[in-house]
Amino acid sequence: MDQDLNKHSNETRGMNRRERKREEACLDILGAATQVFRERGFAGAGMREIAAAAGLSAATLYYYFHSKDEILYFCQDRTLDRTLDALQLARKTRGPVAERMMTLAMTHVLCLIEGVEGTAAHFEVDPVTPGLREAITAKRERYKDGICALIALGIRRKEFRRCKPKFAMRGFLGALNWTPHWYQPDGPDSVQEVARHIAEYAVAGLLKRG
Amino acid sequence: MDQDLNKHSNETRGMNRRERKREEACLDILGAATQVFRERGFAGAGMREIAAAAGLSAATLYYYFHSKDEILYFCQDRTLDRTLDALQLARKTRGPVAERMMTLAMTHVLCLIEGVEGTAAHFEVDPVTPGLREAITAKRERYKDGICALIALGIRRKEFRRCKPKFAMRGFLGALNWTPHWYQPDGPDSVQEVARHIAEYAVAGLLKRG
Repeated sequence: MDQDLNKHSNETRGMNRRERKREEACLDILGAATQVFRERGFAGAGMREIAAAAGLSAATLYYYFHSKDEILYFCQDRTLDRTLDALQLARKTRGPVAERMMTLAMTHVLCLIEGVEGTAAHFEVDPVTPGLREAITAKRERYKDGICALIALGIRRKEFRRCKPKFAMRGFLGALNWTPHWYQPDGPDSVQEVARHIAEYAVAGLLKRG
Repeated sequence: MDQDLNKHSNETRGMNRRERKREEACLDILGAATQVFRERGFAGAGMREIAAAAGLSAATLYYYFHSKDEILYFCQDRTLDRTLDALQLARKTRGPVAERMMTLAMTHVLCLIEGVEGTAAHFEVDPVTPGLREAITAKRERYKDGICALIALGIRRKEFRRCKPKFAMRGFLGALNWTPHWYQPDGPDSVQEVARHIAEYAVAGLLKRG
């Protein structure tokens, strides 16, 4: 999975070797932080415990992240970048809107349940530091607007049922975003299978009957 | 809304006057607790602050609830009872499964965004007291099993597309359960309108095309 993540980042953001190293270190810290957040809750977790869990000195941890809020931001921002890349692809691709949204929905679910960011998606708190919070909110708005535009396109092309895109977008994202609430990484279903079934449901909610 | 809640409770549980009084007091406390939880987070809230917000002495608050965990349980248990009533109705009613699930989905969303329980649905923590947590989990399982059974019935009757009910149930509940995350009580859309659009999306995800 780490390899896939790096592949993704390298391709989309043209990272040099030093940046890649940094990103790897940040992902390791995120993995350790996830454990601490799970055990103590986000509010109860301290930078000292996160450093210990990551096997780092506090000084080294602070070199990468100034606060646990920044760790959370790193996680959410990365996930958002991946879903925005998928949105961009869905908008540029030709062909049935339903197919494009199927690919987008699958990527979205995989971002939430796969890899370190996925396991961290459970926190469900937003960064509180001014600037970080606004940056996350702005990207989320961009993503939601893009989904609405795709739904509106599907309606115009008579692929999708007539509905208000803003509500359909909320239902669509709800079906996807709920996945980390119930998905058991050690359960019988693979991430791919879960993503496919949930994406099929989410796209079916948009389709025209007959 | 309080009137509707009481109407519901009276009808379904045959409360006497004393029980009704108690329930009203509990709902008032829940309203006050909601404010405190919002301001301080569930973990940071104290019974003392909740008593103050409700305009009660600590002793009176403890007469109704022994802990904030019990307040949370009261809220979740009540909401679950209402959705289980709706499920029961959907299973007993005759006619198209899609119509019955539409009514169920609307009730579910209204439970989450309407009234005091609705505003409290945002907490997204489960009671930690043994017994309380298990009771909530058991009711949730019952509800999920019932939804799966209805979906399976819709598939057998060829109203619903062929799918695995356990995944469709997750998508269906995800679309509904996500509503409190984005719904703005002071926004332009009424609770009824929101519930209808989201329920339409959620049921559309199950329907057969053509």
